[in-house]
Amino acid sequence: MTDRDVPPSAAPAPDPGAGVVISVDAMGGDRGPAAVVAGMAESASKNPDIRFIVHGDETELRRLVGRRKALAGRCDIRHAGGVVTMDDKPSQVLRKGDGTSMWSAIESVKTGEAGAAVSCGNTGALMALSMLRLRKLPGVNRPAIACLWPSLNPQGFNIMLDVGADIRADAHDLLQYALMGASYARNGLGLSQPRVGLLNVGTEEHKGRAELKQAQDLILAATDAGKFDYVGFVEGGDLPSTRVDVIVTDGFTGNIALKTGEGTAKLVGTLLKDAFANSIMSKFAALLAMTSLKRLQKRIDPRRVNGGIFLGLNGTIVKSHGSADATGVSAAIKLAFTLASSGFQDRLAARVAQAAASAPGTEAAS
Amino acid sequence: MTDRDVPPSAAPAPDPGAGVVISVDAMGGDRGPAAVVAGMAESASKNPDIRFIVHGDETELRRLVGRRKALAGRCDIRHAGGVVTMDDKPSQVLRKGDGTSMWSAIESVKTGEAGAAVSCGNTGALMALSMLRLRKLPGVNRPAIACLWPSLNPQGFNIMLDVGADIRADAHDLLQYALMGASYARNGLGLSQPRVGLLNVGTEEHKGRAELKQAQDLILAATDAGKFDYVGFVEGGDLPSTRVDVIVTDGFTGNIALKTGEGTAKLVGTLLKDAFANSIMSKFAALLAMTSLKRLQKRIDPRRVNGGIFLGLNGTIVKSHGSADATGVSAAIKLAFTLASSGFQDRLAARVAQAAASAPGTEAAS
Repeated sequence: MTDRDVPPSAAPAPDPGAGVVISVDAMGGDRGPAAVVAGMAESASKNPDIRFIVHGDETELRRLVGRRKALAGRCDIRHAGGVVTMDDKPSQVLRKGDGTSMWSAIESVKTGEAGAAVSCGNTGALMALSMLRLRKLPGVNRPAIACLWPSLNPQGFNIMLDVGADIRADAHDLLQYALMGASYARNGLGLSQPRVGLLNVGTEEHKGRAELKQAQDLILAATDAGKFDYVGFVEGGDLPSTRVDVIVTDGFTGNIALKTGEGTAKLVGTLLKDAFANSIMSKFAALLAMTSLKRLQKRIDPRRVNGGIFLGLNGTIVKSHGSADATGVSAAIKLAFTLASSGFQDRLAARVAQAAASAPGTEAAS
Repeated sequence: MTDRDVPPSAAPAPDPGAGVVISVDAMGGDRGPAAVVAGMAESASKNPDIRFIVHGDETELRRLVGRRKALAGRCDIRHAGGVVTMDDKPSQVLRKGDGTSMWSAIESVKTGEAGAAVSCGNTGALMALSMLRLRKLPGVNRPAIACLWPSLNPQGFNIMLDVGADIRADAHDLLQYALMGASYARNGLGLSQPRVGLLNVGTEEHKGRAELKQAQDLILAATDAGKFDYVGFVEGGDLPSTRVDVIVTDGFTGNIALKTGEGTAKLVGTLLKDAFANSIMSKFAALLAMTSLKRLQKRIDPRRVNGGIFLGLNGTIVKSHGSADATGVSAAIKLAFTLASSGFQDRLAARVAQAAASAPGTEAAS
């Protein structure tokens, strides 16, 4: 009998060396709790240091978790009868969401029991509940969602934010996104001095919106305090490039860019499949190239870059794609684990507070 | 001796059946006039109905055109000593641009000698000069640049506008983009009843910017007069989809989306090449699949979807990529030819004027 077989109630007290706890909202995703629990099991089998608090219907979760050996003794189940659906409006969830698995999952981060939370649920509701329960970090006006973008950089990914937390952002918000994105790049991607760029319609000084020029001045003045380099304006074509590590933009533009990139990659994938299904010869070629094609698919597979991070709150929340399968959920959990074990949350808070104190143009949190 | 050998000065008077004249700015592209003349020759060899007025350094053009049999007797050379460079600011070009090949190329459209003009030069300068010399169509407040987007629709492309003529657009501007984009889809892509969508961060009614909701109401009210269907809000992932034919957005968002899509397609292409170069087996597979891969490349090759159309002016201007080679220039010329021979300009003007007269919310041209 291994220690994995110890039932949850008899689990030993958390051991700092072997116990990063991730809070998981099992409900609300398009594929239901089975996919989420499968993703947890995938993570647990790869990572001996992870433990879970999982939130949702207790009977169902007990059944699903009981089937997974990798989860035995590493999973604390918290019953929550309510589910936030994809159609629920954030304003409704704020009023009546306190019995839901989403609310409960955030609560485990608020109380400090978990180092980060993961949910596949409704993005707007998750952000609204997270803001309500965790509150904004001092110095942050608008929280942001940061995504990973496949790139040709050695780390394999660039970071873009905001991709949809808020459709507006003024110059001060964009400065905060630069600080938070740089901190995320340091702790999530291991880059000691990340390069930050501001998304615009041209790289020339005179082009683009007035607030972007103002943001550029603020960001330039914060490079020393924020420990990052500023590379200037970047364009849509630079998102996967080696010119930049962190791309800063407002949530409207960032969301359009994110979905355009995903849509284009999907289109090319479809056309590629059609091309290989075209003749006997090309079908044979596809067989021969299978390993290489799989490696490519892995590189651009959106499931493997799954996980938007909410930045600017008192706690780390990872938003997984609503349609994530076990592989996708496992990728989001891995990201939550990396950030929770790096002490990211405290470092981010310190960085933002320091910049708010040193830069006279930066407003305190409203 | 065929009629192609008749020297330009002795060319017969334009014959309506065999004489759609395209005005070409030979200078200002990244690859110089040789690539432009090569593209003209490629078009001429495929299309017996096309004729050219080409603008630039006469000595050089005479030499380049003289080498191309396909252009013999079909090319009127107009000397222009000045060149608009990629670094010239639009404001400078407006003041001092009247001796340039770009100015001269637009002038041939203004006088009615040519049905459309093509330039590989500086986009900002080309738009500024086109607005100065051709003037805006009555009923149009902001002209737009429309691009073609590879899609899964039967026509192979969707249309998106504005992709960078103006970084602002209010609700009335977006309505005009819908009308102009639908007219372009009818005449350029042969769609009798195009489906128009408005780019937003969600498809739900309550999401996105306030001016988009206002624009949606105006566009819905104009579907009958504009002979198009309105499909509602669309997202970045819908750009290559079969849900929509014409995507309407402001020039800032459209430019970011365009360049993000191009950048993503390029990234996937690079990774695909790497994948096939990975092993002996995969190199052999690439050889076997060559025909299929070439077909795919052709489908997503940006050179073959080359040509942004300026909409909302008294004349049709096609902006080719600055780095276009002969294939790219030829694609832009083909688009100019299709629009010039369809009577697009007059139909677009009539459509915009009719909508301006019937919709009380639409302002007359300023």
